[in-house]
Amino acid sequence: VNVITLTTDFGTSDWFVGTMKGVMLKIHPRARIVDLTHEIAPGNIRAGAFALAASAPYFPNGTVHVAVVDPGVGGARRAIAIRTRRYVFIGPDNGVLSLAAANEEVRSVRVLQNEGLFLKHISRTFHGRDIFAPVAAHLSQGTGFRKLGARAGSYVQVDWPQPFVDADGVRGEVVYLDRFGNAITNIPADAVPAGDRVEVWMKRTQVGTLESSYESVPAGAPVAVVGSTGFVEVAVNTGSAARVLALKPGDPIRVRTGA
Amino acid sequence: VNVITLTTDFGTSDWFVGTMKGVMLKIHPRARIVDLTHEIAPGNIRAGAFALAASAPYFPNGTVHVAVVDPGVGGARRAIAIRTRRYVFIGPDNGVLSLAAANEEVRSVRVLQNEGLFLKHISRTFHGRDIFAPVAAHLSQGTGFRKLGARAGSYVQVDWPQPFVDADGVRGEVVYLDRFGNAITNIPADAVPAGDRVEVWMKRTQVGTLESSYESVPAGAPVAVVGSTGFVEVAVNTGSAARVLALKPGDPIRVRTGA
Amino acid sequence: VNVITLTTDFGTSDWFVGTMKGVMLKIHPRARIVDLTHEIAPGNIRAGAFALAASAPYFPNGTVHVAVVDPGVGGARRAIAIRTRRYVFIGPDNGVLSLAAANEEVRSVRVLQNEGLFLKHISRTFHGRDIFAPVAAHLSQGTGFRKLGARAGSYVQVDWPQPFVDADGVRGEVVYLDRFGNAITNIPADAVPAGDRVEVWMKRTQVGTLESSYESVPAGAPVAVVGSTGFVEVAVNTGSAARVLALKPGDPIRVRTGA
Repeated sequence: VNVITLTTDFGTSDWFVGTMKGVMLKIHPRARIVDLTHEIAPGNIRAGAFALAASAPYFPNGTVHVAVVDPGVGGARRAIAIRTRRYVFIGPDNGVLSLAAANEEVRSVRVLQNEGLFLKHISRTFHGRDIFAPVAAHLSQGTGFRKLGARAGSYVQVDWPQPFVDADGVRGEVVYLDRFGNAITNIPADAVPAGDRVEVWMKRTQVGTLESSYESVPAGAPVAVVGSTGFVEVAVNTGSAARVLALKPGDPIRVRTGA
Repeated sequence: VNVITLTTDFGTSDWFVGTMKGVMLKIHPRARIVDLTHEIAPGNIRAGAFALAASAPYFPNGTVHVAVVDPGVGGARRAIAIRTRRYVFIGPDNGVLSLAAANEEVRSVRVLQNEGLFLKHISRTFHGRDIFAPVAAHLSQGTGFRKLGARAGSYVQVDWPQPFVDADGVRGEVVYLDRFGNAITNIPADAVPAGDRVEVWMKRTQVGTLESSYESVPAGAPVAVVGSTGFVEVAVNTGSAARVLALKPGDPIRVRTGA
Repeated sequence: VNVITLTTDFGTSDWFVGTMKGVMLKIHPRARIVDLTHEIAPGNIRAGAFALAASAPYFPNGTVHVAVVDPGVGGARRAIAIRTRRYVFIGPDNGVLSLAAANEEVRSVRVLQNEGLFLKHISRTFHGRDIFAPVAAHLSQGTGFRKLGARAGSYVQVDWPQPFVDADGVRGEVVYLDRFGNAITNIPADAVPAGDRVEVWMKRTQVGTLESSYESVPAGAPVAVVGSTGFVEVAVNTGSAARVLALKPGDPIRVRTGA
């Protein structure tokens, strides 16, 4: 389908992302390149993995997803590609691909070794341009997955906090703060039974029960909902939970379901 | 023509916009998706309406314009589409579409009710992905406008300050501060006669007459011009009027034309 | 090839860039428009010139590169187009195109004078929309280069600091700080012989020798490498050299090669 997505920590203030697109269009003039985001905090592999996993499943079959959050560029880490039933994921083997791949049926994993698919001159600091972009373009254009390099065996999993279930309910933590200041947690919706007996605590604030929308509470009040990624999320109606509740990644959430 | 534009307050630091594009490309692989802006301040319906109205008329006939500034998502507000002679506008019925529609010949307005055009699972917090994106893609691909839902009758108009004309001239206010710190006002150029007798006052600063370009005054000096959207605009040559004159939306401007 | 790139200081918080894309798609519906960056600091011609020069060579032959960093818009500066063997560059004649053009074989330079290729109404403040975008679209679609206007003769060169070579080594300065806080200097890699005897000083900090990657030093330590643009670059492994060493454009770097 010619669709290639990009998820990076490159920002958009420099020419890095644009240059990757030039490289891809030179190889594959019909590529349709879509930015997921380039504003992952520099080197934040977990945030990159989460963003990719949240977005990738909405793309058409055959999409090539490239993720470059790569603090170890030029060092010993491998570059890999993961082929699943629906997609190909390409990036450094540091965990940034692992959450998205976990949503899919993985078929094959290869190490990017075939230098014939890279740019001729490989810099030490910009593999997005020199390796990941051209390999993605070649794959999107039809180059066989086996041509990338040797099988990779396993690949690095991102460090991801698991929620903890006990008789009293579920304990988890904030994993992502979005642009609106909503706090996305690691507690999946299906771990929480519906009903008025549910009580959500974010740090020391009792947020109430799980509501159906932000507007279920007055403006300025905190509210817990099932967010669009399928996880419990704490927001403030027409405000920022991150600011009002002074939240940061890692802050504890407790969902009490006992009574 | 397959062109779909997006205007949102989603920012670009998360995966929201990219996900909408995935949804659209899955439905309509030949869609050409253009970002107008995603940096509307969260929930600022008037700024979203202004940005859309300033940009939409420059697009080819047949373009589908999507605007999602939607503080009431998941609540009672309707989702609508407005078909004009040249375009379709899609978004929440909260006024964000109204300025752009006012520039066009409106033919029909419908409520988005046909769930067959939505994603299967509708979240409570991300209708951009679940409703607006898929409906836009279906329309751009050729789905008939009538299939969206019932006629909407009227739709919400954005709250917009009208300039006030008297014998002395025109009084208005700042409606938008752009990236350069230029202050766009609600006074249309054709409300102001040309000539040296025009005197522009921004708050308590006498800015001078209407000049033809920023460079008509020395660097660092304030200057009033007819801006690119057709409204009187106050700038500072090679500087920021917002900063130098400490401007914010709502600040008063007076254009004296009497003498 | 229908590819048009955009480099501007317009930011992405307003509708400026989106509007330029509408204008281009109306003229040339098959244009493939790629953003290099829109976050050049307002009016910073040198940064715009550097970004364009760093990215342009990676694009396919036939690409039309548009750069609008244009503090003199509406004033006396000319608008020009530079045709090279591989590309066309379009923008104000203030130096923003000159570094990129210097990388290519220049064939012809013309002044943008043919108003038949502009929008009908030319504002005084937004030539990106009214002149540069439509001219780029016409050229990308096949309009002959000679139709733009008269030959331009010479064109403005950006003010660019030259590195200074003496028996002791090379002296240069910081020309660009990127999103990661890496300091790109004006010292080309080929001006520095490899080897342990090279000693890099950034302001009063001895950075060490030229390393092959950021990871060659401990996390938090400064490191000098050959950056992806081919210039000597000072970074901090997993950190920001701009912050740690308090760097700004113009700060001096010395590379000692004598011993």
